[in-house]
Amino acid sequence: MDSQEFRKHGKEMIDFVADYWDTIRERQPLPDVQPGYIWNLMPNEAPKEKETWEAIFGDLNKVVVDANTHWHHPHFFAYYPTANSYPAILGDILSAGLAPIGFTWKSSPSCTELELVITDWFAKMIGLPSMFLNQDPGPGAGIIQCTASDSTLVALLAARARAVKLHSQGQSWMGKLWKSDIVNKSWQLIQKHSSISNGSQAAHDSAKMINPDSSLFPRLVAYCSDQAHSSVDKAALLAGVKMRKLQTSRGSNYSLKGETLAAAIKEDRAQGLIPFYVVATVGTTPTCAVDDVASLGKICQPEGIWLHVDAAYAGSAAVCPEYRYLTAGTELVDSFNFNAHKWLLVNFDCSPMWFRDATEAEAYFSVDPLYLKHEHQNTAADYRHLQIGLGRRFRSLKAWFVIRSMGISGLQTHIRSMCVLAQRFADLVAADSRFEIPAPVHLGLVCFRLKGENAASEKLLKLINEDRRIHLVPAKAHDIYFLRLAICSTKTTSDDILFAWKVICELTERVHEDII
Amino acid sequence: MDSQEFRKHGKEMIDFVADYWDTIRERQPLPDVQPGYIWNLMPNEAPKEKETWEAIFGDLNKVVVDANTHWHHPHFFAYYPTANSYPAILGDILSAGLAPIGFTWKSSPSCTELELVITDWFAKMIGLPSMFLNQDPGPGAGIIQCTASDSTLVALLAARARAVKLHSQGQSWMGKLWKSDIVNKSWQLIQKHSSISNGSQAAHDSAKMINPDSSLFPRLVAYCSDQAHSSVDKAALLAGVKMRKLQTSRGSNYSLKGETLAAAIKEDRAQGLIPFYVVATVGTTPTCAVDDVASLGKICQPEGIWLHVDAAYAGSAAVCPEYRYLTAGTELVDSFNFNAHKWLLVNFDCSPMWFRDATEAEAYFSVDPLYLKHEHQNTAADYRHLQIGLGRRFRSLKAWFVIRSMGISGLQTHIRSMCVLAQRFADLVAADSRFEIPAPVHLGLVCFRLKGENAASEKLLKLINEDRRIHLVPAKAHDIYFLRLAICSTKTTSDDILFAWKVICELTERVHEDII
Repeated sequence: MDSQEFRKHGKEMIDFVADYWDTIRERQPLPDVQPGYIWNLMPNEAPKEKETWEAIFGDLNKVVVDANTHWHHPHFFAYYPTANSYPAILGDILSAGLAPIGFTWKSSPSCTELELVITDWFAKMIGLPSMFLNQDPGPGAGIIQCTASDSTLVALLAARARAVKLHSQGQSWMGKLWKSDIVNKSWQLIQKHSSISNGSQAAHDSAKMINPDSSLFPRLVAYCSDQAHSSVDKAALLAGVKMRKLQTSRGSNYSLKGETLAAAIKEDRAQGLIPFYVVATVGTTPTCAVDDVASLGKICQPEGIWLHVDAAYAGSAAVCPEYRYLTAGTELVDSFNFNAHKWLLVNFDCSPMWFRDATEAEAYFSVDPLYLKHEHQNTAADYRHLQIGLGRRFRSLKAWFVIRSMGISGLQTHIRSMCVLAQRFADLVAADSRFEIPAPVHLGLVCFRLKGENAASEKLLKLINEDRRIHLVPAKAHDIYFLRLAICSTKTTSDDILFAWKVICELTERVHEDII
Repeated sequence: MDSQEFRKHGKEMIDFVADYWDTIRERQPLPDVQPGYIWNLMPNEAPKEKETWEAIFGDLNKVVVDANTHWHHPHFFAYYPTANSYPAILGDILSAGLAPIGFTWKSSPSCTELELVITDWFAKMIGLPSMFLNQDPGPGAGIIQCTASDSTLVALLAARARAVKLHSQGQSWMGKLWKSDIVNKSWQLIQKHSSISNGSQAAHDSAKMINPDSSLFPRLVAYCSDQAHSSVDKAALLAGVKMRKLQTSRGSNYSLKGETLAAAIKEDRAQGLIPFYVVATVGTTPTCAVDDVASLGKICQPEGIWLHVDAAYAGSAAVCPEYRYLTAGTELVDSFNFNAHKWLLVNFDCSPMWFRDATEAEAYFSVDPLYLKHEHQNTAADYRHLQIGLGRRFRSLKAWFVIRSMGISGLQTHIRSMCVLAQRFADLVAADSRFEIPAPVHLGLVCFRLKGENAASEKLLKLINEDRRIHLVPAKAHDIYFLRLAICSTKTTSDDILFAWKVICELTERVHEDII
């Protein structure tokens, strides 16, 4: 395909995508296929000779679109939203077209520097303290990770390294470990990520053995709420450390408090364990509960226990002043993450993460072979040190396009309109005596259940799944099973909420019929 | 932006990208900017009100393109290539437009199933054994990861879990651990990824503590060649295990052999260590050396030591029968990875990885909260279990478009033409008595240096960096410093090779002048 053909077929693809969005309402949120459907539609090996674009293009609906789950369908209410918008798609086109690999500053200055700016924009938009800004003279920094899972794991690994360093050297916290570095360096705007790869774990070209100290791992214990996302569990599995899930209660809206953490720390220390990492969730998956970051921070900060905030879903809402409580207490945290790709109209993947002290994480993870060195590496940001993988896409473009196309006020309107829709649904549920709302309605999520035993709500979910006109998923908080309706699509209107409620009521009739 | 505006601006963006490619030759590979350039070009906070698309679009060249490193410029010879092509860009447009999140089969059947097919296509194209195919009735599976770094880490973590399981239970290998599972299950095409989350490390909704056994970590030791990529070092750091870098020699073309591994294993076992994981590199970064996978496999397989192949760059070449030696011995490996986004015209990210037994990795990493469960999860592939993060993009689209647009024969032509260009450059170097070639020319990479002390070649690299007409990076193999010229861009022609050589010769004059 040459550039003339690309101009032609690219424009056809633009229309294909626009048509998809214009007609998405004519589809169902869930496709009508069974596992293995594709093997009947496609050869099981690659073609030897090239095919025409027309042949490929002609397969798109049948193979791909008709078997897709339409996350942007107005009747898709499952999980939490994944964002999208036309400006975001334009950003991805440019990212795909330029396609640099921004692992070092030199490997694409604009890929790195636009990300520095955009993470600063995001930080200010949601009210994070200035210590997290790339522009701040301190060692804080923002980066765009792929997923919240990555952020939770990266923070956990940095926390683990900090704990090993502190405890194996018998050091105590209070900033002693890093403060000297910070004071001695002229932490200027563009010098802050300078490679300080002299940490005990850093690898060198000449090293014959990478030899991290894992002897303390069995004594390390991390904490999260029992409402935390499964990716937090997974991070602990991958890092090889204990993760204790602290009990929340319905009475306190499933929010984890500092006092619960303090008691657990005391208990675990008495057992000889070393508390080192806490994940506070701002907007849990089951009920959109918010952990008490400020009280957790007051426990963690004095002792050098790394506090990470997973605000994957709810963080976006902090663009509105009335939801700014979602970033309260963050002056006490070590790292913070939210998914702009969930609720800020930027498509996946765009998961901004901030470090209070990026030089710390960098020191632990830095590997610095000759072929990646460059003349600016002591004065420019090399994002590779703050993430799992080496390669990275030009992710900031789409965020830049979205923010400028919408303005902060446009993003606020977007968040607010989705919250209004959620409240509208909640009002319908609340007015029906068959149902109850097991947790406060928060932001764009409504949890609801049929009163009484879980079985009735389980049956209702099963009927909704079979019916397929709307799509939502269940969750459990302790032993209470419920359904979750999350406002996901920018196409969802007030009428769609009425439609969803009509479907739910219709199927509820059948639950009760069957149970009787 | 509404769909009409998107149709208009999307088409403008297509032309912008096409123009970029049509005129890339007029640029230099490296941009003319200094660290921090962007802060003079952009406001340091987001706009409150929306801006016009024209205003945004008008900033693209100045902020982004003019400060980009042009990996696709014909005079870019650094690192290894990152691939791109028009069909790949079309795939990314569709991926961005549909934007499902394919973490489970149900969350987008086509996202999951097209990936099953495409990884089978890739596997057959490069001559992997059928045990790796999704279509094979055994437990093998293919998945597209983000980067080779991810693959190396995922394999290492699975290997670590296997080692803990084997050694903490006093079990010996010989398939005992998994064979019963395999025999007892009807491993059908679409059932192979069924969740067997009963592994000792698996987390459950009700668990109060994630409690992986890390007591053996200090005794675990992994191996790679001293030529392995820095991401292998990093994987060991992140996983908290020793990674011993085994010595290669110039005499054996920097290839790691089974006998070297066997000696190290014996030595380490005598020290009480537990060898558990080996990374064989097929196409090292410094010299494109190829480890002896077959002899390594013969050591690893009988003892259950996980053998992973990192064929990030060179794997693509195995689409050509004459390079099929690159996948020799893979019937003995546990996992294999290459970056189609390096050399098969698919843009980043597209890093296919295969598991000999996906159910094993899955058992170790599975977390299975209620909100991700679905009615097909025992009969369909849920890719989330085989990767670090939860969310995932529709990455297979671009690979599908590229493979069909090119055909296998087109991809072969692409690989071969780049190898011819490398040989052409090597011939120029070989004919000049000032230079030597410190390692055999292999595929699209030529290593070269000025004869004598490293200082001369270091000086030459510095002059090339300052000159900026061509871009390449240095490497070291043991104490020998050299320059690497990798054929990277699809725009590079025979004339561009002559141009690069002319620049190098011109600058070499200055090296000698200065040194004299």
